[in-house]
Amino acid sequence: MRANQRDMIVASTSTLHGQRPLEYLLDELKSVFTNQSIKSLLFIPFARPGGITHDQYTQKIGDALKSLDIEVKGIQQMQNTVEAIQNAKAIFTGGGNTFVLVKQLHDHKLMQPLREAIYSGTFYLGTSAGSNICGLTMQTTNDMPILQPTSFKTTGVLGYNINAHYLDPIEGSQHMGETREQRIKEFHTYNSVPVLGLREGSYLRVKGTEEILKGPHSARVFKAGVEPTEIQTDTDVSFLK
Amino acid sequence: MRANQRDMIVASTSTLHGQRPLEYLLDELKSVFTNQSIKSLLFIPFARPGGITHDQYTQKIGDALKSLDIEVKGIQQMQNTVEAIQNAKAIFTGGGNTFVLVKQLHDHKLMQPLREAIYSGTFYLGTSAGSNICGLTMQTTNDMPILQPTSFKTTGVLGYNINAHYLDPIEGSQHMGETREQRIKEFHTYNSVPVLGLREGSYLRVKGTEEILKGPHSARVFKAGVEPTEIQTDTDVSFLK
Repeated sequence: MRANQRDMIVASTSTLHGQRPLEYLLDELKSVFTNQSIKSLLFIPFARPGGITHDQYTQKIGDALKSLDIEVKGIQQMQNTVEAIQNAKAIFTGGGNTFVLVKQLHDHKLMQPLREAIYSGTFYLGTSAGSNICGLTMQTTNDMPILQPTSFKTTGVLGYNINAHYLDPIEGSQHMGETREQRIKEFHTYNSVPVLGLREGSYLRVKGTEEILKGPHSARVFKAGVEPTEIQTDTDVSFLK
Repeated sequence: MRANQRDMIVASTSTLHGQRPLEYLLDELKSVFTNQSIKSLLFIPFARPGGITHDQYTQKIGDALKSLDIEVKGIQQMQNTVEAIQNAKAIFTGGGNTFVLVKQLHDHKLMQPLREAIYSGTFYLGTSAGSNICGLTMQTTNDMPILQPTSFKTTGVLGYNINAHYLDPIEGSQHMGETREQRIKEFHTYNSVPVLGLREGSYLRVKGTEEILKGPHSARVFKAGVEPTEIQTDTDVSFLK
C-alpha cells in the first residue's frame, strides 16, 4: 500500500460571521505555506455560489490570501485540468453548491486525480462544498440539487462523510421541516457511512493518518443505528470509518 | 388537447405545529370525498420519513383520516402498482425524503401514470415531498440526497416547481449556511423554471386550469432574473409557468 501523505485542512465554512473570508484560517495556512515553501495555489471554483463567475470567485480568494504572498490560479484558466491538479503544490476547493461542484468534477474526470494528489501529499484546503467532497459521497450535503451530477461519489480521502455548516436544532422552533440531525438519521436508514457534523469554525487538520478536530467547537458524530455523540476539539477522528 | 380535469390539493406540510397529521385539511378533504362519493384512497408512502415501514406509514395515514370514513390502501400492498394508480379514485403521496420518493417512482415507472391519473381527474393530495413531485423537477427540494434517483424529473402537473416548508430568513442569525431564498436564487442561475415557496399552512387548491393559493399565508414567487414577489391567498397562481 502506498504511503499516506495527506496534508489537509477540511473546514466547515470559509467565513465566520463578522469576519473576512478565510480570516480564521490565515495563521494555519501561513505556517503551511512557509514551512513547505509553497508559492502558488490552484483554486477550484466550480461550486461557485450565487452566480458569480469562476474568475470573479478566484479573484475573491486571491484577495483573501493577499497577506500570504501566494499566487492563486483558477483551474478554469488551465488548458489541461488533470495536469493542473497533478502539478499543483497546493489545492483549494471553495464552497457554493455541492451538486454543481460534483457535477463539474465528474464531467471533467477530476475526482480521481484529486484523490491521488491528496494521497501523494499535495496540500489540500476544502471549505464547505470543498470539504463535502473529501467524504465518500456528497449525500450529506445541505445544498439544493440545482444540477444533476452523474454520480454522488466523491474523493473518499476521508473514510466517512462530512456535514458542513452543521446546525444544532433551534430550540422552540415551530417549523415542521426536518432538523439537520433528523436528516442525517434518515441518511442512515439507507447508508452505513459515518457522518461528521462540523460546526462553523471547526475544521479537521489531516496529516498522514491523523485527522485532528480543531477550532472552538465539539463535532457531532453520527453512526447508523446508534445515538449521536460529541467529539471534543483536539481529538483524532480517524477511528471514524 | 385533452381536457384538463385536475383536482388537487398541493400542501406545504402534512402537519402544523401542535396539530395532528392532516388536521388542518380535514374539512376540505371531507367535502371532496363526500361530493365525489370517494370511499377509498391509494396512499403512496415511498418518501417514508425516519425509517418507519411503508405499512406503518400507511397505518398512520389511515388513523389520521379515520373521521372521514375512507379506506386507505398503501401502494406497497398492490400487485400491479401502475394499475393501482389507474384505478384509484383518490391518491395521496405523503412527505418524507423527496430523493427516496422520486427514486422509487422512477424505479417503478410510476411518474407518467401518476401524471395521467391526475390530468384525467383522479383526486390528488400531496404534502411536502408529495407536493414537490407536482412540479417539473425535484430540484427545489430541501431534502438530503440520501439516495440517488435516475432522474430529477417529476410529474410536471404544475408548470413550475414547489419549495415546500418555505422558510423566511431568520433575523439576526449568525449562521453562514445559505438561506432558502439564496438557495432558490442559485437554482435560477442554472434553471429557468419558476418556483413557488409555500409556507407551512399554505396549499394550492387545483381544479381544472385554476390553481388557487389557500391558507393563512402569502406565498413567495421566484423567477429567474427578477426579485422575488409575494402572492396573496385566494390568488390563482396558474399564470406562473
